[in-house]
Amino acid sequence: MNSRYKVLKFSSRKLENIEDLISIEEPLEISIKFQEKDNWITQNLSITMRTPGNDEDLVRGFLFSEQIVQNIRDIDSIKSFGDKVGQYNIQNKILATLNNAQNINISKIKRNFLTNSSCGVCGKSSLDALEIIKKNKPDPFAPQITQDIIIQSPDILRKSQSEFSKTGGIHASGLFNNNGDLIELREDVGRHNALDKLIGSTLKNNQLNAKTQFITCSGRLNFELVQKVLMTDIGIMIGVGAPTSLAIDLANKFDITLIGFVKSDSFNIYTNSKKVIVN
Amino acid sequence: MNSRYKVLKFSSRKLENIEDLISIEEPLEISIKFQEKDNWITQNLSITMRTPGNDEDLVRGFLFSEQIVQNIRDIDSIKSFGDKVGQYNIQNKILATLNNAQNINISKIKRNFLTNSSCGVCGKSSLDALEIIKKNKPDPFAPQITQDIIIQSPDILRKSQSEFSKTGGIHASGLFNNNGDLIELREDVGRHNALDKLIGSTLKNNQLNAKTQFITCSGRLNFELVQKVLMTDIGIMIGVGAPTSLAIDLANKFDITLIGFVKSDSFNIYTNSKKVIVN
Repeated sequence: MNSRYKVLKFSSRKLENIEDLISIEEPLEISIKFQEKDNWITQNLSITMRTPGNDEDLVRGFLFSEQIVQNIRDIDSIKSFGDKVGQYNIQNKILATLNNAQNINISKIKRNFLTNSSCGVCGKSSLDALEIIKKNKPDPFAPQITQDIIIQSPDILRKSQSEFSKTGGIHASGLFNNNGDLIELREDVGRHNALDKLIGSTLKNNQLNAKTQFITCSGRLNFELVQKVLMTDIGIMIGVGAPTSLAIDLANKFDITLIGFVKSDSFNIYTNSKKVIVN
Repeated sequence: MNSRYKVLKFSSRKLENIEDLISIEEPLEISIKFQEKDNWITQNLSITMRTPGNDEDLVRGFLFSEQIVQNIRDIDSIKSFGDKVGQYNIQNKILATLNNAQNINISKIKRNFLTNSSCGVCGKSSLDALEIIKKNKPDPFAPQITQDIIIQSPDILRKSQSEFSKTGGIHASGLFNNNGDLIELREDVGRHNALDKLIGSTLKNNQLNAKTQFITCSGRLNFELVQKVLMTDIGIMIGVGAPTSLAIDLANKFDITLIGFVKSDSFNIYTNSKKVIVN
């Protein structure tokens, strides 16, 4: 599933209005229902950010690969429910009814899933939790950066990564000023961790200045990454790869300039192009 | 942080023993301690799979970007604790003490984090939960596949993706037989979701046959993906990108053949090369 978005494409040293297909990212709240003695218990298990489509397969695979059920026959039915919501008018809640509580690893469910845990978006317990509690917007006009600074920043990031050149398998996030100088960089196998490390380090060292800075990330841009940048009040976010629909929608809502697919001579501006100077 | 692993590299039509640097992936269990009225409460928040190093920055950034604290001054201290564990002899538990419970969004913590939720590895509540409950190993000798089938599978995956060519921003997982034929493919913005969809779909349709099949994924290979494949009893896993340390360690423990960095004329075999035929 994908959707058509307006994009301002920089290429051949000029900007052009195009439309581009973007992969849809929407939350899916997974619950299970099972019988314990005489009671039917409904339990919210997880929220995952997924591309809608094949939701039943996703739940079936999740319950099996996470060892909630040992056998696929222990899943009686899987049904989407709830209102059709969001921009794409789809159901984002799904319930699996388990039909053989003896075979179901309930102690494992309780140990791993029904305890108090979370990580970023994916572990949030209800769709409501995805709502951003953020009153102020980043400055919609500042900083401004040129096309050359945008194009150079992923290169600078890659060359400054101490680990990527060694292993080829690690993400990076970098804080830059509007002259294109790299202020700080952090690496991690998890891209959300690389960004958290960058935010944590620059907060501690009092290096954040939203009026003059932007952040560049090594991979694709999803909802979770844009949400984290939003918290810093920084208003420009650059990614080497593609953004998801929800990353664009969130950036748009808060006037963040979201730039993706940065190559040696081109990039795409998905939202708020007022901060990009082309000359 | 990285570690040196033995790798069997296929290149120039022959195999060669080399050593390669691999990014370390280890779980980090994040807890917070805060005062509510007269009581100090310690609460396990999250497990994330991270590259060790800058753990304090990671926690600081996580607490801020996930809006557990509104101000960095509300974190009094962050300290690693517990035994040094695992292959790299590091502390995998960390506690942040919050010093101003009035400013801390406790209702938000309770709503988002202290409820019952999880997603794969990242939301599991204790390090113990990472332990794999799996008694049997996949067949250590079957299936066998040739170098050509290995090299072709990511290409076949990419060409068969209905979404990637449109958006350039979506992961895929594919189930192949030992002749290199694609049996089924699923796509998602989340790579763990693409794999769950594939597993769920092929389980439902009774298409899984561990003796003759392998799985190829579009991105990098981490612990979570190998864990999911392990549950299907399939013994060969191929990725286009780099594996993490824990992906290799888990594959090794269960004799899964783990292959990464597949290019048009080369690939790396990280574990159990007995299933690879080079001719």
